[in-house]
Amino acid sequence: MTNEFLTKGASLAKIPSDFGSTGFKMFKGSILHNVEIAYETWGKLSNNNDNAILVFTGLSPSSHAASSKLNPESGWWEYMIGPAKPIDTNKYFVVCVNSLGSCFGSTSPASINKDKGVIYSLDFPELSIEDIAKAGHGVLQTLGVDHAHTVIGPSMGGMTALSYALMFPDSLSNLIIISAAARALPFTISIRSLQRELIRSDPLWNNGKYNKDNAPINGMKLARKLGLMSYRAANEWRERFSRERAPKSENKKMFDIEFEVEAYLDHNAEKFVSMFDPNCYLYLSRAMDLFDVAEHGGTVNAGLAKIHTKKNLIIGVESDILFPIDQQEELANGFNKAKKNYKFKKLNSIQGHDSFLVDVDNFSKAIYEFFKS
Amino acid sequence: MTNEFLTKGASLAKIPSDFGSTGFKMFKGSILHNVEIAYETWGKLSNNNDNAILVFTGLSPSSHAASSKLNPESGWWEYMIGPAKPIDTNKYFVVCVNSLGSCFGSTSPASINKDKGVIYSLDFPELSIEDIAKAGHGVLQTLGVDHAHTVIGPSMGGMTALSYALMFPDSLSNLIIISAAARALPFTISIRSLQRELIRSDPLWNNGKYNKDNAPINGMKLARKLGLMSYRAANEWRERFSRERAPKSENKKMFDIEFEVEAYLDHNAEKFVSMFDPNCYLYLSRAMDLFDVAEHGGTVNAGLAKIHTKKNLIIGVESDILFPIDQQEELANGFNKAKKNYKFKKLNSIQGHDSFLVDVDNFSKAIYEFFKS
Repeated sequence: MTNEFLTKGASLAKIPSDFGSTGFKMFKGSILHNVEIAYETWGKLSNNNDNAILVFTGLSPSSHAASSKLNPESGWWEYMIGPAKPIDTNKYFVVCVNSLGSCFGSTSPASINKDKGVIYSLDFPELSIEDIAKAGHGVLQTLGVDHAHTVIGPSMGGMTALSYALMFPDSLSNLIIISAAARALPFTISIRSLQRELIRSDPLWNNGKYNKDNAPINGMKLARKLGLMSYRAANEWRERFSRERAPKSENKKMFDIEFEVEAYLDHNAEKFVSMFDPNCYLYLSRAMDLFDVAEHGGTVNAGLAKIHTKKNLIIGVESDILFPIDQQEELANGFNKAKKNYKFKKLNSIQGHDSFLVDVDNFSKAIYEFFKS
Repeated sequence: MTNEFLTKGASLAKIPSDFGSTGFKMFKGSILHNVEIAYETWGKLSNNNDNAILVFTGLSPSSHAASSKLNPESGWWEYMIGPAKPIDTNKYFVVCVNSLGSCFGSTSPASINKDKGVIYSLDFPELSIEDIAKAGHGVLQTLGVDHAHTVIGPSMGGMTALSYALMFPDSLSNLIIISAAARALPFTISIRSLQRELIRSDPLWNNGKYNKDNAPINGMKLARKLGLMSYRAANEWRERFSRERAPKSENKKMFDIEFEVEAYLDHNAEKFVSMFDPNCYLYLSRAMDLFDVAEHGGTVNAGLAKIHTKKNLIIGVESDILFPIDQQEELANGFNKAKKNYKFKKLNSIQGHDSFLVDVDNFSKAIYEFFKS
């Protein structure tokens, strides 16, 4: 069966079942059948099976983290992954997974529910960050990797990496958490909650039962704009856009785009909505709100104390408003209290939450150092 | 003719014309006819005509800033205005105006265009902050006040007070600007632009031609939620809501409200939308984006140099993300460069942009001191 969502160059892993012959037991108890996860790899697995790096993504990217022979297009973390790059594919076997619940090939609300022959939509069970972590662990199993050298992720991927370390403490040596948190704050929840409401308010969303050719594009666009606003930092925009006016269009009506920053948001939101499935967005967004390390031990610190990786690196950015720096500080404090070996890197990048995508210098340096040490 | 929008206790001033017999020439050149402004007053005008304080409001309040005999309900700045309060109505004659373009009695996009006998809607001309200032000046004229002791305003009202001082430099002695700016930053513009798009995306908005009983309530609700998020500060919400869950409702569906912060936003947005006219919101919101002191002299500093009030007080709040503290700093620097007599108060209130409404202690103290000195 073809998979229309699979990105170029990605493979599909059939995740080993842990409930009957095809079932994947989810964190909140539901069973999902025939789970498949899209992934890409770079580099080679060593004979000792000790050089695998598992990369989890933020909410929106696919498994295409870097270019490859099969797909030469730039990946979302192109500067980070490759030969002699910070995550060095000459040394490491790098695996990036498309999250369970995302629409780039992995089983998701946009997939066909084989039991019923129709798209899951809202029949997809409640998704947790833990399910994404477990599905990533399943991909490693299918690749013959029983133990990851390092698990790494930015943003939602950082929560997922953390979750992996909580659920499979014996299946990784090192952990890198970037611009993430032990759990979401109310301000962050309110942003994501509103984003979901924007999608759900589009009449075309139709309680999740939209037609692919007539999807709630406008709701998605509005949600993406709010996302972009929360991903970047006010001061960077001040430098970049100031109060520059957008080129005047003919037939400009009252309330049309006036400023360059509005045109920028419009353009970028437009690009996104053609690619991402609205229901998948809703599920992944909500999973981030619900994630809480405290569910793995009673408190955040008790949860973190259960992790027994050799080395931990926590990176945060001071201009991040979505996952503010003191949330990474909270993680560092937790590791400190539990007497773990950790490093906490506070970066002064000006690009807010998205810095890991664009502040090549600071992030390259931090990751190089980690793997050198 | 009755005015269905007029708030209890408010009066209507017919603004003196400056174009033909009924015209009000707007900042961008259009002519508006028969302009009326709703206002309330407290205290008594002195025989010397030297104790009037003109209060401009933020985007959403009416002229009901404080309780009165005619309307004993609490006003939006109840703690600030009254006998022996920071703005002492035993000493001062206080006038609060409902902004031109707002829907609490003043001429606005929700008013009847008497030329055509229909509601203005988007036929209302482009609104500038300067027009609101000029209409406020007109109210003082009708009250026989040719010179204000002090003009004061928070948020949009701060921009309006600034605009008043720029346009009528000889018609005021003192100026108080609270949590405002010389012009909007791209991040702030992006928030307001998205709010407007949320309203305009509601199918019931219908290009401004909605029926009062079938208005774009949902778009307004979404816009208000985004507004509330930008008015408050992340750290206050962390204290207040943490990750508390909302009471479970029966028949809870996927993506319904889960957290207390979501319930809070929903409740507060709901309250607002029944009161405020969507087109008025659009016009006022856009006026704030367009306002720029630099239009009064070429640069912000050149504009500020034209103001020749005796005393100026600029107040900013460090947790404000909508009008960040360095925007008030910019105003202070401008007054400093122009060798004006000014004070800059940086408050450490934790409630963000809305602090002037709720941080009674800090704000009372700052305003008391101003009038005592």
